[in-house]
Amino acid sequence: MYYVGIDLGGTSIKAGLVDENGKIIRKATCPTLVERGARPVVDDMAKLVLEVCAQAGVSLDDVKAVGIGLPGIQDPRTGHVPFCTNLYWHEVPVIEWMQETINKPIFIDNDATVAGLAESVAGVSAGIKNSVFLTLGTGLGGGIVLNGKVFSGTHGVGSELGHMITVEGGELCTCGNRGCWERYASATAIIRMGKAAARENPDSLILKSVNGDESAITARTVIDAAKAGDPTALKVFDEYVYHLCAGLVGIINFIDPEVIVLGGGVSHAGQFLLDAVRAKLPSMVFYKTMPYARIELATLGNDAGIIGAAMLGR
Amino acid sequence: MYYVGIDLGGTSIKAGLVDENGKIIRKATCPTLVERGARPVVDDMAKLVLEVCAQAGVSLDDVKAVGIGLPGIQDPRTGHVPFCTNLYWHEVPVIEWMQETINKPIFIDNDATVAGLAESVAGVSAGIKNSVFLTLGTGLGGGIVLNGKVFSGTHGVGSELGHMITVEGGELCTCGNRGCWERYASATAIIRMGKAAARENPDSLILKSVNGDESAITARTVIDAAKAGDPTALKVFDEYVYHLCAGLVGIINFIDPEVIVLGGGVSHAGQFLLDAVRAKLPSMVFYKTMPYARIELATLGNDAGIIGAAMLGR
Repeated sequence: MYYVGIDLGGTSIKAGLVDENGKIIRKATCPTLVERGARPVVDDMAKLVLEVCAQAGVSLDDVKAVGIGLPGIQDPRTGHVPFCTNLYWHEVPVIEWMQETINKPIFIDNDATVAGLAESVAGVSAGIKNSVFLTLGTGLGGGIVLNGKVFSGTHGVGSELGHMITVEGGELCTCGNRGCWERYASATAIIRMGKAAARENPDSLILKSVNGDESAITARTVIDAAKAGDPTALKVFDEYVYHLCAGLVGIINFIDPEVIVLGGGVSHAGQFLLDAVRAKLPSMVFYKTMPYARIELATLGNDAGIIGAAMLGR
Repeated sequence: MYYVGIDLGGTSIKAGLVDENGKIIRKATCPTLVERGARPVVDDMAKLVLEVCAQAGVSLDDVKAVGIGLPGIQDPRTGHVPFCTNLYWHEVPVIEWMQETINKPIFIDNDATVAGLAESVAGVSAGIKNSVFLTLGTGLGGGIVLNGKVFSGTHGVGSELGHMITVEGGELCTCGNRGCWERYASATAIIRMGKAAARENPDSLILKSVNGDESAITARTVIDAAKAGDPTALKVFDEYVYHLCAGLVGIINFIDPEVIVLGGGVSHAGQFLLDAVRAKLPSMVFYKTMPYARIELATLGNDAGIIGAAMLGR
């Protein structure tokens, strides 16, 4: 049996035919073109399902289910997607529309949740019963796998890990609160801190490496400068790692997963990030003499969205 | 079939014979006398098991299991209790010692976890699959029930909800971090804030109601003064409720339980607390238009420890 996974983002729709073990057989993609509204986007998702099957020479009869990972949630009361970040969707009946063409069980979940599921099936947390996946990107998304299954909570509003408050009264968040973890542990946070530090230390490598153009500073600029030993960048990086660990400690003390997987743009800092986090955590966890979650880097990269979405139907 | 539940605290050991439905048939108690060391305390726990059975005329053959709730954890690697808050225990083989007298399956879990289980069997969250229980007392303990079962995590170090960091850089915590939720949402936090406010506002009802003796201020002093409309106390209470909600929002956005149960000393503020929390949460949760966890008060009071411990073996 096969599964089709769809990774719906603000820029592109990616679909893949995936086998039982989470291996991608065939991929296809098209631009999202958000401005055309929800219906044509959903129609294109259905077309991509047929396309990957046709290209792989697999009949739709051999596809057990279709899964969709998207930057939003499904309302379990209505089955609709009430909204999607950056897609301007409002109460979209995705499954109904898809099933007009694709007469299959269709499952929907959050993109970070789906990426976490992918890692737990075919990635770094494969075979692990309890894991938490984090996308450290523009925002900070979370995916929870408990007893081998995606856990999105009772009302489907869980795993929004970026919106744990770690700095009461801190930076204003898009959700209306101040001090959400996302404001301090996302790539966006590194950029904000990096720019502020560069302004105060104009001689730092951060600013030099973008030829003095502050607006060109990315998370990578800061991380690369830190890797090169620039003191200003190292200070920003240390501060970032502390903010990241403040939330990681909350996750560990709360649900005590076996593994926490770091994904998203910041995770490309690789071993440099991993070493820093692993060095800081032991003094911060509650039970100092007991084992706690291993921290690992995501391994599936951009394919995680397709694989995890496909695995929703498994 | 019957179960015996033991609630081990720093002051007293309470045991109860409990039926399948979490109803207490018979209770017995004795002082803990911490200073005598672990072995006599464990021996007394075993004696209390026999005592409640004898008093109820129930043979030990009709007891399926014994459960113990204590202010610590069990190390799943060794079966030992590595330590207990206020009991000065170090690597105590509780189950081995108990089974020298009581040849039954024996289960151990954290006191807050056990109280949460009790509420989910015979209390306010009865029949609810996913719930989080909080003891707002000297510290802030947590109990998690997922799919109707106690969830203590992979390594047994989970549900330490008081040690999520909500105020980075804030008050120093016993765990070594700064800004743990416990420092801001426990009874101890109300006392600290109440004393500081009373110092700044010596005319407040807080200080009047303890005849000017700041050291006599309790959480109840502050809450009662707030209920009476004292502006200083109301300000402290509002601030406390915000701190409490900052962590509740983290729980909701993280594992999205169906119910969050407030127990412990502060919960005796009753409807006054419940109304304040329920009024503040809607603007703080991430998904403003989706349902989220009901907030409820614990109903089992002091019996929760016995009932929940007994239910560990069910």
